[in-house]
Amino acid sequence: MNEQSAISKLVGLLTRLPGVGRKTAERLAYYILKEEGAFGQSLARAILEVKERIRFCSICGNLTEQDPCAICRNTQRNRKLVCVVEEAKDIWSIERIGTYDGVYHVLMGALSPLDGIGPEKLRVQELLARVKADAVEEVIIATDPNVEGDATALYLSRLLKPLSVQVTRIASGLPVGGDLEYADSLTLSRAIMGRRALD
Amino acid sequence: MNEQSAISKLVGLLTRLPGVGRKTAERLAYYILKEEGAFGQSLARAILEVKERIRFCSICGNLTEQDPCAICRNTQRNRKLVCVVEEAKDIWSIERIGTYDGVYHVLMGALSPLDGIGPEKLRVQELLARVKADAVEEVIIATDPNVEGDATALYLSRLLKPLSVQVTRIASGLPVGGDLEYADSLTLSRAIMGRRALD
Repeated sequence: MNEQSAISKLVGLLTRLPGVGRKTAERLAYYILKEEGAFGQSLARAILEVKERIRFCSICGNLTEQDPCAICRNTQRNRKLVCVVEEAKDIWSIERIGTYDGVYHVLMGALSPLDGIGPEKLRVQELLARVKADAVEEVIIATDPNVEGDATALYLSRLLKPLSVQVTRIASGLPVGGDLEYADSLTLSRAIMGRRALD
Repeated sequence: MNEQSAISKLVGLLTRLPGVGRKTAERLAYYILKEEGAFGQSLARAILEVKERIRFCSICGNLTEQDPCAICRNTQRNRKLVCVVEEAKDIWSIERIGTYDGVYHVLMGALSPLDGIGPEKLRVQELLARVKADAVEEVIIATDPNVEGDATALYLSRLLKPLSVQVTRIASGLPVGGDLEYADSLTLSRAIMGRRALD
């Protein structure tokens, strides 16, 4: 591949994508090369288009072409219910369920002192301001169920409690369709701690 | 994601890449969106560049910016030794070892009657012509060690034998660092059939 600088440049750029190693990058580059029709051109155009047109929603931090985003503009959604997530892409996951009718608030990360991410780097003040201004009734904290996400949830709940808003955390436990045998012990202990009465 | 047509378009295109499902595509699109600096722009440019500048080498079928390719142009390489591969990307794998000094011949696939790929769709005639014209001494058949690759190897060896050229097949067996316990029985039986005397 020494001389084929255009290919190696593309492969090099592709390896910067998350979860893409050298072999995968070569496979992707090869596909782009071999694919007939205008796939490569469309892909290049789509990349340029998102970079140009997509920005953050000034209210919730979602990615959007129009500010505020479709969810914040939608008058059918319940503004008294705010779901706090780490990243805008988490909104996509929750929206895919199709049953949540509240609004969102993207923190743009989670507390991680080791990585130098303190509360001032997250959209925490914006959340507090929204909760006060909109008289929010419930804040669902849907940060990831890991050390950083849990710490962030705890931190936020302490800040939110004085505002007399209900603060809840998404449940942690065994995934549906999962197998007790293969569950790690932390998940299993969470599942037992979070047990519910069967009526 | 309903309204974010630019993002969904990018995600849709990314899912067409091999091994990329919806979730991975979303993760890649999100990375491209969030990455600061000109990553998206560089990636788009690199894609357009390969599509524009890369073509097939008229001699061996390798992907190249300049025809013939660097390997075919290199006078240090042994033209009497031809390694036959299915795809141009297989050349990258063999070149990475750094010890093979012969040239290549890309078939552009393997025989697969079920997919309607017969000998006429592969670069078989070109191979026979090269073998005759360059008085090739050995043809190493390095098609994949699966049903299609093996059938192709057998087919080629029958065509090549009358040209009084030595025809060899790359060895099939347990991967180095592998574990006998986890080898599938076909690989294991090949490894036993292909056993060699220890001197």
